[in-house]
Amino acid sequence: MESFACPFPIQQYPQVLLAHGGGGKLMQQLIEKMFTVAFGPKPQDGLHDSVVLDLPKSRIAFTTDSFVVHPLFFPGGDIGSLAVYGSVNDLAMSGAKPLYLSLGFILEEGLSMQTLWGVVQSIKKAADSAGVQIVTGDTKVVDRGKGDGIYINTSGIGIIEHGFNISPGRIKSGDAVIINGDVGRHGIAIMASRAGLEFETIIESDCAPLNFSVKALLDAGIEIHCMRDLTRGGLASALNEIAQAAGYSIAVEESAVPVREDVASGCAMLGFDPLYVANEGRFALFVPEKHLGPSLEVLKKFSLGLPAAHIGRVLEERKSFVILKSFIGANRILDMISGEQLPRIC
Amino acid sequence: MESFACPFPIQQYPQVLLAHGGGGKLMQQLIEKMFTVAFGPKPQDGLHDSVVLDLPKSRIAFTTDSFVVHPLFFPGGDIGSLAVYGSVNDLAMSGAKPLYLSLGFILEEGLSMQTLWGVVQSIKKAADSAGVQIVTGDTKVVDRGKGDGIYINTSGIGIIEHGFNISPGRIKSGDAVIINGDVGRHGIAIMASRAGLEFETIIESDCAPLNFSVKALLDAGIEIHCMRDLTRGGLASALNEIAQAAGYSIAVEESAVPVREDVASGCAMLGFDPLYVANEGRFALFVPEKHLGPSLEVLKKFSLGLPAAHIGRVLEERKSFVILKSFIGANRILDMISGEQLPRIC
Repeated sequence: MESFACPFPIQQYPQVLLAHGGGGKLMQQLIEKMFTVAFGPKPQDGLHDSVVLDLPKSRIAFTTDSFVVHPLFFPGGDIGSLAVYGSVNDLAMSGAKPLYLSLGFILEEGLSMQTLWGVVQSIKKAADSAGVQIVTGDTKVVDRGKGDGIYINTSGIGIIEHGFNISPGRIKSGDAVIINGDVGRHGIAIMASRAGLEFETIIESDCAPLNFSVKALLDAGIEIHCMRDLTRGGLASALNEIAQAAGYSIAVEESAVPVREDVASGCAMLGFDPLYVANEGRFALFVPEKHLGPSLEVLKKFSLGLPAAHIGRVLEERKSFVILKSFIGANRILDMISGEQLPRIC
Repeated sequence: MESFACPFPIQQYPQVLLAHGGGGKLMQQLIEKMFTVAFGPKPQDGLHDSVVLDLPKSRIAFTTDSFVVHPLFFPGGDIGSLAVYGSVNDLAMSGAKPLYLSLGFILEEGLSMQTLWGVVQSIKKAADSAGVQIVTGDTKVVDRGKGDGIYINTSGIGIIEHGFNISPGRIKSGDAVIINGDVGRHGIAIMASRAGLEFETIIESDCAPLNFSVKALLDAGIEIHCMRDLTRGGLASALNEIAQAAGYSIAVEESAVPVREDVASGCAMLGFDPLYVANEGRFALFVPEKHLGPSLEVLKKFSLGLPAAHIGRVLEERKSFVILKSFIGANRILDMISGEQLPRIC
């Protein structure tokens, strides 16, 4: 998308005022001259309190996510693209085709209007690239010191076109565990950006939509048992959640988990374990062993970093442990993170 | 709903920590021991990134709203009931039957866990009373001083069972304008609560679900042209939005607009015009003149304050003005509010 001029009079209102959330003229101007310009024309018969949609299927997935990432802009993304891909990916993880997003802004009084416009453009660009439409929204403004620039909520609706159930309950012993690329980039990109750190290379967030990879897997006839995106808490937490829900233990080969060299160095420097660092474009995929090869083939076409890899398998043991076979050959339990590794990464 | 004991160890964690939003063990405990206890059992096959729903209809309404009200608890409601009824009412205004809500929390580090539990119970009670289910959620925690206790987003899905279109585009000259009760209570309740003001009577917010009134109107065969709830900006702003979208002027009789005496006094004391003060259980209804009587009959059964009233009509003039015939008989333009009358009332 080319950047386009904003018809909102930014010079007249260089900063967000409380009145921009007050339900009166200024809010109307913000909606009409900024939001509907970016996200699509105002309906002919006027904006409503809710939008009416005719869905092509009545089996849907529904999700919600709030985004409070700090800073708002970071290498590889910003709060806007994150907010779109976050909800798109949550829908994709149920095997749904994401169609519609809602957009709720909580703005802090005094926010630069130019910053808001930058985020709005990024949301539009991300929505276009993921093939979803922003169809309804809401704007609140909180007083100075009661927010942090911009918080965003996106909720999403996707339709489910296939007939089967994708969930931890489908997992079976012997299933292959696949990851669609290298881990740790989003968290390290945020952390480096926050701390003003510079590495030899720029570590960009892996923030990306996953719906096209999922569609390609389904189109290829892969029998997907479960998927989970590796956001807060990283790979380790996602696998633990699944192991607990499925009631199986999962074995993971540490050396098989792709980590970029610069990310590994960054993690070592900052004292993080890349297996716990957040990602925004990575997911774990559980398929029957016989679908391992075809799954990797499909995922490699969507590679946005190191290629997809087979990292582990589901054990017969029904203890819900995640067992890491480390580089030195020892086995250890890979537990869920107990405290907070890195706040406000999404 | 009777209040029930919270299995979350509030004594162990009396305040919300950053880790409660960190994706690890503490977040899992909060979800499992507080949220899923209140909102329904964890699905047998585990929590997903999104929820899969089989809708009885594929024509739906979709809405989103964030809530930043201050204070969190006020006479007649709290941020929890407001967050439920707000989205329920936005769906009802499209003539939809609200079914499902998502729930996104942005919590401030240090928030009292008891307060959170109070809000969670209120959400459950309100959802039950409106006949909707909380089906998916998200929790983020921001550092101290970057929020204000609790912000909530609810997004909602409702199904549309009737075959016609309810929108400003349906309005015709001669339509009767009806309001379902007295105005100004929500805003004055919040303001009084914030300022520590006491009136002779307690002014409670009118916060209530509107879906049952709307269903009764539809069931009675009322030909609803348009509805709009009178939240931020009050009656005056809602009518202006509709006049602009419909392209008709609307005449309103000031003496016909129900305002409770204590609310009128409160407004006079605080310098507010009740026509601009926010409501959370009031809506304007546009119907053909011949349906005026039956509409009032239906609405009076749902009265939660002064009864429903016929307050005005749609003119032939296509100038999009809202014209107020005042108590002294003079006509004046009732404009949209330009600044901010009262921030953070919803």
